[in-house]
Amino acid sequence: MKLEKKDILGMQDLSVDEINLILETAESFLEISTREIKKVPTLRGKTIINLFFEASTRTRTSFEIAGKRLSADTINISSSTSSVVKGETLIDTARNLEAMNPDVIVIRHSAAGAPHLLSSLVKQSIINAGDGAHEHPTQALLDMMTIKEKKGRISGLKIAIAGDIAHSRVARSNIYGLTKMGAEIVVAGPATMLPRNIEQMGVKVFNNLDDAITGADVVMMLRIQLERQKQSVFPSLREYSQHYCLNRHNIKLAKNDVIVMHPGPINRGVEISPDIADDPSCSVILNQVNNGVAVRMALLYLLIGGHE
Amino acid sequence: MKLEKKDILGMQDLSVDEINLILETAESFLEISTREIKKVPTLRGKTIINLFFEASTRTRTSFEIAGKRLSADTINISSSTSSVVKGETLIDTARNLEAMNPDVIVIRHSAAGAPHLLSSLVKQSIINAGDGAHEHPTQALLDMMTIKEKKGRISGLKIAIAGDIAHSRVARSNIYGLTKMGAEIVVAGPATMLPRNIEQMGVKVFNNLDDAITGADVVMMLRIQLERQKQSVFPSLREYSQHYCLNRHNIKLAKNDVIVMHPGPINRGVEISPDIADDPSCSVILNQVNNGVAVRMALLYLLIGGHE
Amino acid sequence: MKLEKKDILGMQDLSVDEINLILETAESFLEISTREIKKVPTLRGKTIINLFFEASTRTRTSFEIAGKRLSADTINISSSTSSVVKGETLIDTARNLEAMNPDVIVIRHSAAGAPHLLSSLVKQSIINAGDGAHEHPTQALLDMMTIKEKKGRISGLKIAIAGDIAHSRVARSNIYGLTKMGAEIVVAGPATMLPRNIEQMGVKVFNNLDDAITGADVVMMLRIQLERQKQSVFPSLREYSQHYCLNRHNIKLAKNDVIVMHPGPINRGVEISPDIADDPSCSVILNQVNNGVAVRMALLYLLIGGHE
Repeated sequence: MKLEKKDILGMQDLSVDEINLILETAESFLEISTREIKKVPTLRGKTIINLFFEASTRTRTSFEIAGKRLSADTINISSSTSSVVKGETLIDTARNLEAMNPDVIVIRHSAAGAPHLLSSLVKQSIINAGDGAHEHPTQALLDMMTIKEKKGRISGLKIAIAGDIAHSRVARSNIYGLTKMGAEIVVAGPATMLPRNIEQMGVKVFNNLDDAITGADVVMMLRIQLERQKQSVFPSLREYSQHYCLNRHNIKLAKNDVIVMHPGPINRGVEISPDIADDPSCSVILNQVNNGVAVRMALLYLLIGGHE
Repeated sequence: MKLEKKDILGMQDLSVDEINLILETAESFLEISTREIKKVPTLRGKTIINLFFEASTRTRTSFEIAGKRLSADTINISSSTSSVVKGETLIDTARNLEAMNPDVIVIRHSAAGAPHLLSSLVKQSIINAGDGAHEHPTQALLDMMTIKEKKGRISGLKIAIAGDIAHSRVARSNIYGLTKMGAEIVVAGPATMLPRNIEQMGVKVFNNLDDAITGADVVMMLRIQLERQKQSVFPSLREYSQHYCLNRHNIKLAKNDVIVMHPGPINRGVEISPDIADDPSCSVILNQVNNGVAVRMALLYLLIGGHE
Repeated sequence: MKLEKKDILGMQDLSVDEINLILETAESFLEISTREIKKVPTLRGKTIINLFFEASTRTRTSFEIAGKRLSADTINISSSTSSVVKGETLIDTARNLEAMNPDVIVIRHSAAGAPHLLSSLVKQSIINAGDGAHEHPTQALLDMMTIKEKKGRISGLKIAIAGDIAHSRVARSNIYGLTKMGAEIVVAGPATMLPRNIEQMGVKVFNNLDDAITGADVVMMLRIQLERQKQSVFPSLREYSQHYCLNRHNIKLAKNDVIVMHPGPINRGVEISPDIADDPSCSVILNQVNNGVAVRMALLYLLIGGHE
């Protein structure tokens, strides 16, 4: 089966069949990163541009490693060194990059919709690596791969997502993807962190963590974006963590075999207590990172290597 | 034929035969970037250092892609991450890089003459990727390649260059190169943006855009360096664009088959109106970018791969 | 013989046999960088992460070139573009990188002990590329390689190290390594730049340069870290250079065939007068840089390529 798509812009656009294809392809790529020689010639002679307008370690590195393990040429452009300094618009940047004949442009941007704009402008494949508070589909796909790996399925699971739902592209992409795959999603967060009309996305809403995680198969804690919280949507970190930090007490409300996820980087003691974050019997946070390389290899392969 | 040169420092140093050799080699490389597998082993095992002391997206990316498509190893050094932070002089940086045995050093620097200093210090090939307001030879070569591609020749064409001539390394390199190739060059710009004695470079000078572009085969609009204009050499952007913006009205003064060029990034509505910049019947701005990769591949090949 | 070590954290941990193995391996790699095709397939499919929390040109570039000439994939992460911006701890960064299955992590960090912490957390090989004022073992190894190259031996030589001993990781690593290899070490510097109890490291201490360099086979001048000297541990640069700058007069006190070393970047006229720094009859500063690539190739090979 082929992925009949030019771009990966969001989970909202992907069908169940497409998601399954991506996850199965990613599973088959997982083994390459454990080999003595972690490299296959699949994308030799392809050019991948990582165009990052926001700081990132893990996502950019994950895409760069994914590209290199498939033998593609990878080019990093970050906003601090780019012509954005000269006031070039995203549109002109896009058209200029297009004229250099890359095969894929991976973009992270603080503005929701930037990857969609790029997609409409250039003929190359675009992968959204996070656009504002909108979507982060590769994160959702690696989360789904991790859930499937640990639970054997996604359908029928109860999955709690807690924290700053309103500002989280990770939450949004996971809600789109996981509901589509048949999971039951509940969310929890302070009132100021819950988007209006969120029930319309097909989720149940709670104003406290305990109710949300009761009976959950999966608990996904979101990152508090400390660096974006100058406008202070909650009284204090201390008060937040008193009500919304996952710890050894409240985790007992979840299923015995619950798995704990976090997109990283963790604020230890704010979203998750350190003992839970580092507990190998429930935390799958590093499996998420590991699966991230495989998911990105799968997407690069399906978009530009799978049509041969 | 071989290029009997160690370095590419400026158009002033290149002979007509050398320019023709570079352009023909670039034309032969153009096809590689359209292949399914965009890579040839020509420069395998060669090391190219991109040493950029000024922000750049397109030029640095263009050189990096050019190097990778020839299978060279490319190393990026930008001033924000370099020992320049520690106060190292260009001389010591150069000698240190030389001791690591690269094959080519591509340098962009805000000081005119920096590539020439580098060239006198190290045994490796130097390519000037822009030095202050002095020269930007790879830009001129890609411009010449684009003109030749669209017009079939350079000799005998009337080429108008308009804008901030005095501060433009693009203008200077093009004037050197295009006059050498037999084109008739006219320039236009506000009095504060015209260098003294510019007629001595073999160009005609006008103080208004209309006179300059009348009958032109090629119109090359220069970028207003907004980020360098704090000292305000012209009254206002609005006044500038009223007199020097290429638009659907004044372009009628040029030949019917005029082509419009710009080194990018464009300030839309300042140097060129958006409808002209995006009009595929006259704008060749993206061809310039596309040809840029081929020109840089050609230079890398001629300097370090062509002697075998 | 194999290097039975997971990491290269400091010269203090390396035995004489291990140092000899590394130096001999580096000597055998020196030739690769002089070939027409400077690349061997030794580390194809290996992933090397350069994790630099401090600005660096030569060390980062040297490691990147070393990795690429061995055909490894190299990934650069610098603090300015990393999740450190988001407040991620070194511990979480380390665990996340580990989950992406690199083979080696090269780390430079302003905190002494950071590489050791990393080593205790992740299963991959760690190379210390400089940790605070603690150690810089690859610099010491390339210094030792240079001394051996020029003098034929290390044992029995008189080696003077002068400057800011207290804040220098280069001095510390060299003192550990060179005394172990049987050299006699003397150090000199202003009282404020000498660590307490330094005699316990097995060195003789002088408060003036002349006494230290008298009869020396090797003079190693340390860099004054101007950018760290806001707290001014010495009265003025001028006064420092009057007493501690190596010049054509005081160098006569050393042996006739003395060699002059500096880890770079040099503050010309502060630590070494320009005529001495550039004198090919005594200065081996660029040999150090050249040997640096070979030493790093050797370490990468011994850590991750030598067990096959």
